[in-house]
Amino acid sequence: MHNDILIINSTILPLSHNEPELIQNGFISIRDGAISGLGPMADLPDSSLAEKIIDASGHLVMPGLVNTHTHAPMTLFRGMADDLPLMTWLNEHIFPAEAKNVNREMVYWCSKLAAAEMILAGTTTVADGYFLEDSVAEAFADCGLRSVVAQGVIDFPAPGVPDPAQNVAMAAQFIDRWQGRNNLITPAIFCHSPYTCSPVTLKRAKEMARLKNCMLFIHLAETRTEAEQIQEHHNTTPVRYLDSLGILDKDTICVHCVWLEEEEIEILAKSGAKVSTCPQSNMKLGSGIAPLKKMLAAGISVGLGTDGCASNNTLDIFSEMDLCAKIHKVKDLDPTALPAKAILEMATIGGASALGLAGEIGSLSPGKKADIIMLDLMQPHLQPFYHPDLLVYAASGADVSTVIINGKLVMQDRQILTFDADQAMAKVRKLAEGL
Amino acid sequence: MHNDILIINSTILPLSHNEPELIQNGFISIRDGAISGLGPMADLPDSSLAEKIIDASGHLVMPGLVNTHTHAPMTLFRGMADDLPLMTWLNEHIFPAEAKNVNREMVYWCSKLAAAEMILAGTTTVADGYFLEDSVAEAFADCGLRSVVAQGVIDFPAPGVPDPAQNVAMAAQFIDRWQGRNNLITPAIFCHSPYTCSPVTLKRAKEMARLKNCMLFIHLAETRTEAEQIQEHHNTTPVRYLDSLGILDKDTICVHCVWLEEEEIEILAKSGAKVSTCPQSNMKLGSGIAPLKKMLAAGISVGLGTDGCASNNTLDIFSEMDLCAKIHKVKDLDPTALPAKAILEMATIGGASALGLAGEIGSLSPGKKADIIMLDLMQPHLQPFYHPDLLVYAASGADVSTVIINGKLVMQDRQILTFDADQAMAKVRKLAEGL
Repeated sequence: MHNDILIINSTILPLSHNEPELIQNGFISIRDGAISGLGPMADLPDSSLAEKIIDASGHLVMPGLVNTHTHAPMTLFRGMADDLPLMTWLNEHIFPAEAKNVNREMVYWCSKLAAAEMILAGTTTVADGYFLEDSVAEAFADCGLRSVVAQGVIDFPAPGVPDPAQNVAMAAQFIDRWQGRNNLITPAIFCHSPYTCSPVTLKRAKEMARLKNCMLFIHLAETRTEAEQIQEHHNTTPVRYLDSLGILDKDTICVHCVWLEEEEIEILAKSGAKVSTCPQSNMKLGSGIAPLKKMLAAGISVGLGTDGCASNNTLDIFSEMDLCAKIHKVKDLDPTALPAKAILEMATIGGASALGLAGEIGSLSPGKKADIIMLDLMQPHLQPFYHPDLLVYAASGADVSTVIINGKLVMQDRQILTFDADQAMAKVRKLAEGL
Repeated sequence: MHNDILIINSTILPLSHNEPELIQNGFISIRDGAISGLGPMADLPDSSLAEKIIDASGHLVMPGLVNTHTHAPMTLFRGMADDLPLMTWLNEHIFPAEAKNVNREMVYWCSKLAAAEMILAGTTTVADGYFLEDSVAEAFADCGLRSVVAQGVIDFPAPGVPDPAQNVAMAAQFIDRWQGRNNLITPAIFCHSPYTCSPVTLKRAKEMARLKNCMLFIHLAETRTEAEQIQEHHNTTPVRYLDSLGILDKDTICVHCVWLEEEEIEILAKSGAKVSTCPQSNMKLGSGIAPLKKMLAAGISVGLGTDGCASNNTLDIFSEMDLCAKIHKVKDLDPTALPAKAILEMATIGGASALGLAGEIGSLSPGKKADIIMLDLMQPHLQPFYHPDLLVYAASGADVSTVIINGKLVMQDRQILTFDADQAMAKVRKLAEGL
């Protein structure tokens, strides 16, 4: 049997219910973009041939990580303005910087920088939401990064959408341009929030998403101020408000969900809506701590998100895992809260489920797309390695040595192979000088 | 003027009140273990010669980081038992593993592994507390790591101290063996806690520390359970209890200080006692969040600590900075709480002050010891680089390329030069197999 890539001598963490928890000395074979086989080295078929053999001795092989929420072009604003009150940060720094600097070239190169950062940190699938999203999609396609790219909808003039009355129509055109065009790219719609989109816009966007059979993302219940605003203007709470508009269903991803009442968790669960939790952003902006344990207990499908670089300030799902595990333990004063296994699942198969991609990615088993990362375990901070839980509490993106997306080698020995990351850094530095 | 090392073309963050905030294109010269000069490249004396010249283009140079609390030998227990209730974790996993495995060889090699990890992550000074501390000191001395090494005192039989009646006497002998022996090593005493040491032991240990002119470390007010125990047995609170015993003065470092009443913060401040805050450990064990803002506002000298590998699970002060900044923002729902600059100071000059070493290390200015690290900024997650705050919110230990301690090149281009880190990893893996 001829394979494209054969990984041998590896510790494998499949994170799949169909496979053992850990395969100590195993192989994975890849053909036509998918996993064609995996198991202990003893079971490697004699006839296994491959174009490329990777010896993974001393490495751990696991599914690529899934980032369920970011704004990739905001790498330009990474560290531009930290430690400020939320409204000062937004109104005096982020919004003016966006108004002045966001154009197709900026979006393309800053998304490429984000892609470099994410690939170097082991993320193989990302859900992005921004404006001029065509340029995000082009950048990710050029990088070989799997993505759900969501065109922004907001009731203000926005980059590429000068007339807000056209916001949903332009999102629909974006979807038409990208549906079926590239098997790594899934287009979607990103409504900014329930306080920046009118009820009419929200309903029209969701109708369009249903018509086009695509997902709808929306920031929801991020801050106490937002909850107070919804109360003031609509006399209800954020989740109830969206529910009353018919926005919540299995193809809606609600991002943040920090300020939820108990009953709203039930409403979300019943609706089938998915959640993207972004703990680092919620912490850095002082927004709050999401009721994650309760959401998971209610059966809600939750993925991890980094949010944009202006509020994190990195796109490293490993550090997001570590911090997510720890913040919920201290919140409940309970070291058993959200164990590492649950966190690893959120960062892989959980995120894939939230994005509607669980049939294709998020775990390692034959037939699934080959989105695979390798970590170098032979480093002082990862020794001894008793258990995969250490990936949550000790690993960082910098430990990822090799990344395969859709069966293609995208990074090997920390060298990105599909594009010129130095060029992206240089372009963004140039843009930053003009800020 | 002849120097040992000359670093050129560097972005320099001195973190010293005597120097500018950032020197954009600068030099640092090093002679006889100390900084002999620093400034803009334009001011580099023509006559500057050096044995070794390091071109730091694309790098940032800053003071080495200070870790004010760890238990280095516990690298052996990294990830051995996570996500368990505190008492199960201690009584069924950590204490039995320590009873069975802690001996001189284990302490030496596991401390060497810890040293490798810390050096690779930019830590140049560490305060350690454990038993058989001679072997910790030997390991750190062999690695060229600056340290305050504190011999454990506890009222139970302990490794190397089978008779608890001898605990303070053996700590005194340890101090005698190490005082003045190696200019990188400062011996001290580490009383485990107010609930594992009797009032008599605490008083005798502090008297001995005064007699020997050395520091006393003690875990204090870490958990609610501890506060309740002190209330039950001594009818007071942890800080008041230590204060009543005369334990608190400028040479006492109180570790954790999570469960403090407002008045206890005042008592600590008035006593001159120092604090080591270990936010990741406090989060992972579900202990709580220290009132750090109030302690700093009261003028208490606070340093950052990682705690041991069993409860973190790494020794990376960069991730400790990031998490410390974020946890206090979300605790107060205030994004301006504990700004990055305050965090950078805690990790450098603040930690040095807490350890009584502020005259020697913790910032870059002529005359200070040359404890210096270089970070590679030419990486996607550190671009653009508008401001040093990014070091808190985006950098990790893996970004450190070069480490100089006491004027000696300890690591260059991520290769440790002073000892064999692979040997330490192999030794600890062997020990781990026997667990």
